Amino acid sequence: TPHNGSSAMSERASRRKGGGRAGRREARGAPAAAAVPFIERNIPFFEILSEEGLELIEHNADRLLAEIGVDFLDDTEVLDLFREAGANVDGTRVRFPAGMCRQIIQATAPAEYVQHARNPERNVTIGGKRTVLVPAYGSPFVHDIDQGRRYATIDDFNNFVKLAYMAPGIHHSGGTICEPVDLPVNKRHFDMVYSHFKYSDKPLMGSVTHHERAQDTVDMAKLVFGDEFVDQNCVLTSLINVNSPMTFDGTMLGSLKVYARNNQATVISPFILAGAMSPVTTAGTVTQILAEAMAGIAFTQLCRPGAPVIFGTFAAAVSMATGAPTFGTPEPSQVIYAAAALARRLGVPFRSGGGLTGSKLPDAQAAYEAANTLQTSALAGVNFMLHTAGWLEGGLAMGYEKFIMDADQACMISVLLGGMDMSENGQALDAVREVGPGKHYLGSAHTLKNFETAFYRSTVADNNSYEQWQVDGSLDTAQRANVLWKKMLNEYQAPAIDPAVDEALLDFMARRKGSFEDRDY
Amino acid sequence: TPHNGSSAMSERASRRKGGGRAGRREARGAPAAAAVPFIERNIPFFEILSEEGLELIEHNADRLLAEIGVDFLDDTEVLDLFREAGANVDGTRVRFPAGMCRQIIQATAPAEYVQHARNPERNVTIGGKRTVLVPAYGSPFVHDIDQGRRYATIDDFNNFVKLAYMAPGIHHSGGTICEPVDLPVNKRHFDMVYSHFKYSDKPLMGSVTHHERAQDTVDMAKLVFGDEFVDQNCVLTSLINVNSPMTFDGTMLGSLKVYARNNQATVISPFILAGAMSPVTTAGTVTQILAEAMAGIAFTQLCRPGAPVIFGTFAAAVSMATGAPTFGTPEPSQVIYAAAALARRLGVPFRSGGGLTGSKLPDAQAAYEAANTLQTSALAGVNFMLHTAGWLEGGLAMGYEKFIMDADQACMISVLLGGMDMSENGQALDAVREVGPGKHYLGSAHTLKNFETAFYRSTVADNNSYEQWQVDGSLDTAQRANVLWKKMLNEYQAPAIDPAVDEALLDFMARRKGSFEDRDY
Repeated sequence: TPHNGSSAMSERASRRKGGGRAGRREARGAPAAAAVPFIERNIPFFEILSEEGLELIEHNADRLLAEIGVDFLDDTEVLDLFREAGANVDGTRVRFPAGMCRQIIQATAPAEYVQHARNPERNVTIGGKRTVLVPAYGSPFVHDIDQGRRYATIDDFNNFVKLAYMAPGIHHSGGTICEPVDLPVNKRHFDMVYSHFKYSDKPLMGSVTHHERAQDTVDMAKLVFGDEFVDQNCVLTSLINVNSPMTFDGTMLGSLKVYARNNQATVISPFILAGAMSPVTTAGTVTQILAEAMAGIAFTQLCRPGAPVIFGTFAAAVSMATGAPTFGTPEPSQVIYAAAALARRLGVPFRSGGGLTGSKLPDAQAAYEAANTLQTSALAGVNFMLHTAGWLEGGLAMGYEKFIMDADQACMISVLLGGMDMSENGQALDAVREVGPGKHYLGSAHTLKNFETAFYRSTVADNNSYEQWQVDGSLDTAQRANVLWKKMLNEYQAPAIDPAVDEALLDFMARRKGSFEDRDY
Repeated sequence: TPHNGSSAMSERASRRKGGGRAGRREARGAPAAAAVPFIERNIPFFEILSEEGLELIEHNADRLLAEIGVDFLDDTEVLDLFREAGANVDGTRVRFPAGMCRQIIQATAPAEYVQHARNPERNVTIGGKRTVLVPAYGSPFVHDIDQGRRYATIDDFNNFVKLAYMAPGIHHSGGTICEPVDLPVNKRHFDMVYSHFKYSDKPLMGSVTHHERAQDTVDMAKLVFGDEFVDQNCVLTSLINVNSPMTFDGTMLGSLKVYARNNQATVISPFILAGAMSPVTTAGTVTQILAEAMAGIAFTQLCRPGAPVIFGTFAAAVSMATGAPTFGTPEPSQVIYAAAALARRLGVPFRSGGGLTGSKLPDAQAAYEAANTLQTSALAGVNFMLHTAGWLEGGLAMGYEKFIMDADQACMISVLLGGMDMSENGQALDAVREVGPGKHYLGSAHTLKNFETAFYRSTVADNNSYEQWQVDGSLDTAQRANVLWKKMLNEYQAPAIDPAVDEALLDFMARRKGSFEDRDY
């Protein structure tokens, strides 16, 4: 087809020549997106457990997998595959001999992989020392300070795709950024996937709510990248939640199989509200997470050896007083630090973290909680940071102002992980020699040489004097962020897309949408 | 005297028996203060530089000390002491042969020390794996959401001493929490020191604005602890700022000498707005900080070998666009991580961090910035965390609501640094065995056994449903914090104080205040 892999190839070639699509984009003066396509860290990982502690947890996880096992529901094919691989299958319960999951994973699961974007400049490498920052995912509501909280629509969805495209610290377009509830449940995936391809050129996540919708996602990706390119390369990373404790349901397994067999990446993610879906201790929670993730990751390799896969973890703690999920507290941070180290030990990329919060507003609670989880995720070495920007209300709402604030933090994470410049210019001995005791550095030669790239400048923070801040209207952070997202949407310019590809996507959607009835499930 | 060290001693004895003052406090139902007197960490320090990198920075700092040197102003005694110790003194400029400062420091500066409180249960150990959380310091204004920003008074000062006394995560009463500008500049130190002794029983910081005021502080401490006890034990930790770059002024040197010679602790703190007071790179900034701190710490040991001393660092970054100081950004975090490691390498305790922010309001900016610095400080291994709670507007304002929010974070830091419970109960294998796939843990035996101590419960966050939150008034975090600080002040009960000690303090103040005129400098 004219829209196959060769379009990505030719774009890559044209980038090398400094012309082509990228050149045209620049010529038009379209807003620059990510300064770098992903973060490559230059500082160590932070770990809270010793090797001995990690080993004990994997030993315990193996005991859980052998003694208790995992339920795989509504999918006899899964059971057959596990039985053939040597597991002990009893009804829907699958028990694994000690070491079996690790063996399967280590044999074929890649330690890292490239997810291709339709603009090759936005390709991301996932795993190892890389961190890819991804918008929040899955909320039925949106929130802004003008209208408050309301159900999300496809217009909101498109807005967030545009904002994520424009945010220099966000590396990925995400997936179900918010649920477009104005569209039928069984057809909205077409519009979401189309929105990511049309309004952004960053990589995306696919639909997981039905195996047919997963297949539709793959088919649309083939229209963009070409059949053979998709079979040989990862162009989708999709979220497979575990029904913790120790259960995978048929819906998620169906989507997992579609993606894995098409060589597309899945994130095998225990969804943990600790104390409800896992033990009320952090070590017990991490043990269960490891057991669940190993079982799911091993299954991806039975579906297609070598299929890219991420060890996922979503961790919140349930309030023992009210039963409500809580975020940004120290126990989920401990879980993220430990799970990240276990994923490294297993040799697969890790997903967790983000700007999590239980707050209903883009206020101080939202910011403390988001910052605590963002810092933890960055230092722990999260490779695929879903929910980096926009999360409010425990994931029930996607916030416009919150997105702007978190996206600012995303840029800071990049600087933090970049580490300290220890070059001669970084050491700056000459600067101290030039200035000397009691003077200031503002006009020094070293400062003049470096000031343009020195020190992160927040887009949201107000660091002016109190008096200047009053003159500017005494705005709080949410009010400043409100101005910023409106300005960004006003200035948005879509990345160029091959008109033939666009037409093919629209044709496919129209044909598929017309082939079955609307449904609300 | 009846108010000497023996009162602390007898109190310590009575604590062992579970009776005495502590027993009476409990009997009265006075609000509990800190659950633990300080944090002892059970997770590693996070470091961003290799040993090679740290060595290079110390090598460079030594070059700065040898080639450029440090100005010690308005104090010929300092110059004489340095000359006798082997430094090269030229006017006010002191240059140090390579290794001289480290040698002096390593010979006698303690790696850790105990600062005694008038209630021995509140004694803090400073250094090593301990973290002591201390209120913010030095603001001329206070802020609350009812009245906005206004000049601080002694009533505000007393209020913050009371709040810090009641906050379980705050281990120290601090020093100049805010400036009581309704009192004369040259006499307000009496009222501040008295307030700490009267309204709290946690350890405190002394006055540093004049050497006579430092001596007054020591004299008041002697009335509480006894002359000999003070000479043999640390009961004050006081803040000596360096006039960066590479300058100590006479005021600070005068106070330093008083405290060191009385065996009281000083924090030698380069005050860095990077790009103005230090080079515009992080490695250059840390190098200068180390040079300045080593010179000042060495001087404390010349004043009195073995005097307790802390390596301090206050780091913000100047906006190259506006010249304004900025907080919570990645570069100051890198400086804190590196400086903490350099202090450990030098073998002395480290001070930095806190809930720093440039925001004028207790809003999202305040919280992101505070959380970023608090997390950094906790993981870096800050031993004495000044400015933990209350900071607003770059230190110009002490916020009532901000204090409550940060104090909540302080409790979380304690849990985070406590690490993961790897006991059999923590591993929780039996919990998973009991519950099994697809069930929930809320009513399990393991949960029932652990729920009371499981998972940190924020005092400020609202994690209820959106509907419940609306019923509760749709409050934001600052509004909830506003309710909390008023409730705390209403419920405040002063810790018992020996009436003879109280009278001695009041007598001393009246006599000293009457012996010279009020002044505004």
